[in-house]
Amino acid sequence: MSLPDQSVDFPGWYQEVVKRAEMAENSVTRGAMVIKPYGYAIWEFMQQGMDRRIKETGHQNLYFPLLYPLRLLEKEADHVEGFTPQVAIVTHAGGSKLEEPLVIRPTSEAVIWATYKNWIQSYRDLPLLYNQWANVLRWEMRPRLFLRTTEFLWQEGHTAHETEQEAMAESKMILSDVYRTTVEEDFAMPVIPGRKSASERFPGAQETFTIEALMRDGKALQAGTSHYFGQNFSRAYDVKFQSRDGTEEHPYSTSWGASSRLIGGVVMVHGDEKGLRLPPKLAPYQVVVVPIYKGDQDKAKVLDACNAVAKMLDGLRVKIDDREHFRPGYKFNEWELKGVPVRLEIGAREVDADEVVVYRRDLGEKQTERLAEVGERANSLMAEIQSTLFDQAEVFRDEHTHVPESYEEFNELLSSAAGFVRAPWCGEAACEEKVKAETKATNRALTLEPEAMTTACIVCNNDAKEMALWAQAY
Amino acid sequence: MSLPDQSVDFPGWYQEVVKRAEMAENSVTRGAMVIKPYGYAIWEFMQQGMDRRIKETGHQNLYFPLLYPLRLLEKEADHVEGFTPQVAIVTHAGGSKLEEPLVIRPTSEAVIWATYKNWIQSYRDLPLLYNQWANVLRWEMRPRLFLRTTEFLWQEGHTAHETEQEAMAESKMILSDVYRTTVEEDFAMPVIPGRKSASERFPGAQETFTIEALMRDGKALQAGTSHYFGQNFSRAYDVKFQSRDGTEEHPYSTSWGASSRLIGGVVMVHGDEKGLRLPPKLAPYQVVVVPIYKGDQDKAKVLDACNAVAKMLDGLRVKIDDREHFRPGYKFNEWELKGVPVRLEIGAREVDADEVVVYRRDLGEKQTERLAEVGERANSLMAEIQSTLFDQAEVFRDEHTHVPESYEEFNELLSSAAGFVRAPWCGEAACEEKVKAETKATNRALTLEPEAMTTACIVCNNDAKEMALWAQAY
Repeated sequence: MSLPDQSVDFPGWYQEVVKRAEMAENSVTRGAMVIKPYGYAIWEFMQQGMDRRIKETGHQNLYFPLLYPLRLLEKEADHVEGFTPQVAIVTHAGGSKLEEPLVIRPTSEAVIWATYKNWIQSYRDLPLLYNQWANVLRWEMRPRLFLRTTEFLWQEGHTAHETEQEAMAESKMILSDVYRTTVEEDFAMPVIPGRKSASERFPGAQETFTIEALMRDGKALQAGTSHYFGQNFSRAYDVKFQSRDGTEEHPYSTSWGASSRLIGGVVMVHGDEKGLRLPPKLAPYQVVVVPIYKGDQDKAKVLDACNAVAKMLDGLRVKIDDREHFRPGYKFNEWELKGVPVRLEIGAREVDADEVVVYRRDLGEKQTERLAEVGERANSLMAEIQSTLFDQAEVFRDEHTHVPESYEEFNELLSSAAGFVRAPWCGEAACEEKVKAETKATNRALTLEPEAMTTACIVCNNDAKEMALWAQAY
Repeated sequence: MSLPDQSVDFPGWYQEVVKRAEMAENSVTRGAMVIKPYGYAIWEFMQQGMDRRIKETGHQNLYFPLLYPLRLLEKEADHVEGFTPQVAIVTHAGGSKLEEPLVIRPTSEAVIWATYKNWIQSYRDLPLLYNQWANVLRWEMRPRLFLRTTEFLWQEGHTAHETEQEAMAESKMILSDVYRTTVEEDFAMPVIPGRKSASERFPGAQETFTIEALMRDGKALQAGTSHYFGQNFSRAYDVKFQSRDGTEEHPYSTSWGASSRLIGGVVMVHGDEKGLRLPPKLAPYQVVVVPIYKGDQDKAKVLDACNAVAKMLDGLRVKIDDREHFRPGYKFNEWELKGVPVRLEIGAREVDADEVVVYRRDLGEKQTERLAEVGERANSLMAEIQSTLFDQAEVFRDEHTHVPESYEEFNELLSSAAGFVRAPWCGEAACEEKVKAETKATNRALTLEPEAMTTACIVCNNDAKEMALWAQAY
């Protein structure tokens, strides 16, 4: 049965791909998912690439508790307002009622800053450059696999610094050197980096930096955020240090997170009418080898050749699909659905001719290759497919980025989820609210550095202060 | 300040080592710990080695929800009895009371078997060979860092099989090929594999296999367990499959777990009066280079030499300790406390003589090496130290394994935590209870395969059925 048409029913297409590709499914626990092995393997490759970059930029991993007292969450005013409606609360444990209720972390600023208070006394203790890989819970009313689930997997970095400049530089560095590189290089997903408007910031942040990607239905996905807190958390949790000058100061801080929702992004950025198209860097199998034979004599010969070819693909993640109860055509469909970058087809004819048929999932093209060259070819194809997927997504993104002339046009583009819309904004929340009410779209990002503007706000026609990127979003 | 004496106050020694080596600390959440970067790095190396073996033996990783309905836990009678007293319960989330209470997983059999019900229809769906890395919660009244905390990190494997034989073989294979190899090869911790007596089994298991290690205070640490469930869980969760013969059958299952408590084990097996002694395979830093200089002229020369030496140690995890506000002697103590396997000392004299002083933490010995040979020497030392630590622990274990002649002697050995005690047992729980009441010791393991016995139970003098290993335990 073919998949729902992306252009007609994108949510239905998404759900079917995630299900049929065996990436994840809804669990017996409402709002939470089971991440199945094929989806989890993608997460592991994502995690490896990001963890390497987090460490290369000088951070260390550690681990804070899942549960912490509700009262800790209440210390930073914006933070508690933002997260309290979403938290799950533990009231009983070990057979009795707890003296004070505990929250399951929706994020860990509260427990971390309550702890940093003991770790920071002097400028010599700074900076703290720490990260944790963890599960978090945010109660969701309308869950969607990977994109919005009550529990999700993520990393959260939490750093503390002597100066404003250093903290701000950290926050921007994470955006460019960890998030943008991971998402663009590994996910082959082009992103637009930017700043969030005040209404879209993380609760408690003075600045939130974001990378925004465009999905094939014209909606945006926030693919990672990095927050500059100034002294908000160090003040709220009463953390001070003795500075180089001998004065007592509150440290400046950042936090930054990227999550398993990125797996939903890779589906929605690259997927087509046949299913997933996985970038080689994240593909659980980079090459699948499908034997094609009829009689028993052919079978032995063909399987031997498949095994020999698999050995030539050393260093790649290879699957020989020698299942007997499925026909080759069925297998082709299955691996196309699962987005395996390269399929090798080997039948008696290919064995006799010292050839292999090579199918590229990104272009949907078949070519015949000399057997002796298949190892080298498969390796070079990995880089080619990785960059083709990126280029295709970038072309799509650019073709779906609009600069409207009037509010009418602006409204129509956003209401129909036609993609990214660039338009000047006066900086007032009232205009954002009007746009959201009329189009369902939000202000996704402002330019990374503010730029001088001479035009008028597309919404209210007053002087514009910022160039903004707008879109409907996940 | 020196550490408490191991032989006088082992718990005090343990706590101080874990704290001063910056491995972990108690958190603001009662019973839960913060795993600090030095402890977490050990966990990451442990995880890499075990994850590799889990995958090499044919398993895939996936991820099930943290929370599941309390009623699911209640389906398997022994399981609910064993875990209900320990669970934490979520009653409120998203601002309102939940329709049904959710538990935070103390282990995941319940949610996994409720899901496997949908994944298993035919023998073609079997075996399921899955593992997850996760945090779990078991409410603890007397928490101790790493050894017993309300939240801990672990992996839990959950497999389903067509036959009893296959499930039993899986359960034993995990014990020998994943747990024993990881703990002996990476942790340098010799273990005794065995079966648990009925009273010591995992709740719901028909057999629990264990590896038991001896700590330096004469107490045992259970270092990993693998459970054979028969059809207990598949019956309780109503999971059936159509067999090769066309009949409807319940699959046979296993589960197996090893946790962050192993990090406590590595402290207690190898630690000495100076602190940690880390096996090179798990050490965050395998080599620390300490420059020794007085004047500025020496400083530049010595630091250059340190950097040059560090480059010769390619492939090893090296730290150059060039902190200016600490003296070399302070650094020596700190890295000995933190258990770094090899320290290189480089001063002006060494630079002039093309030499390096090499200190081995395992033996506490210094040697002078030719500069040109230090790369090769450091590499060979990694293997030497890894095996020396294992050998030392094995000698200690063997010297502290006793075979008493009488119940009086048996009782005295166990009451004083003199180590492992081997003695025949009649198989009756009453004798285990008597031993526990009188000595605080428990039956740690029976021989992996039952052996014919001709002697008498050391407790009651009736016919013995099993040779048992006894000890006080963590």
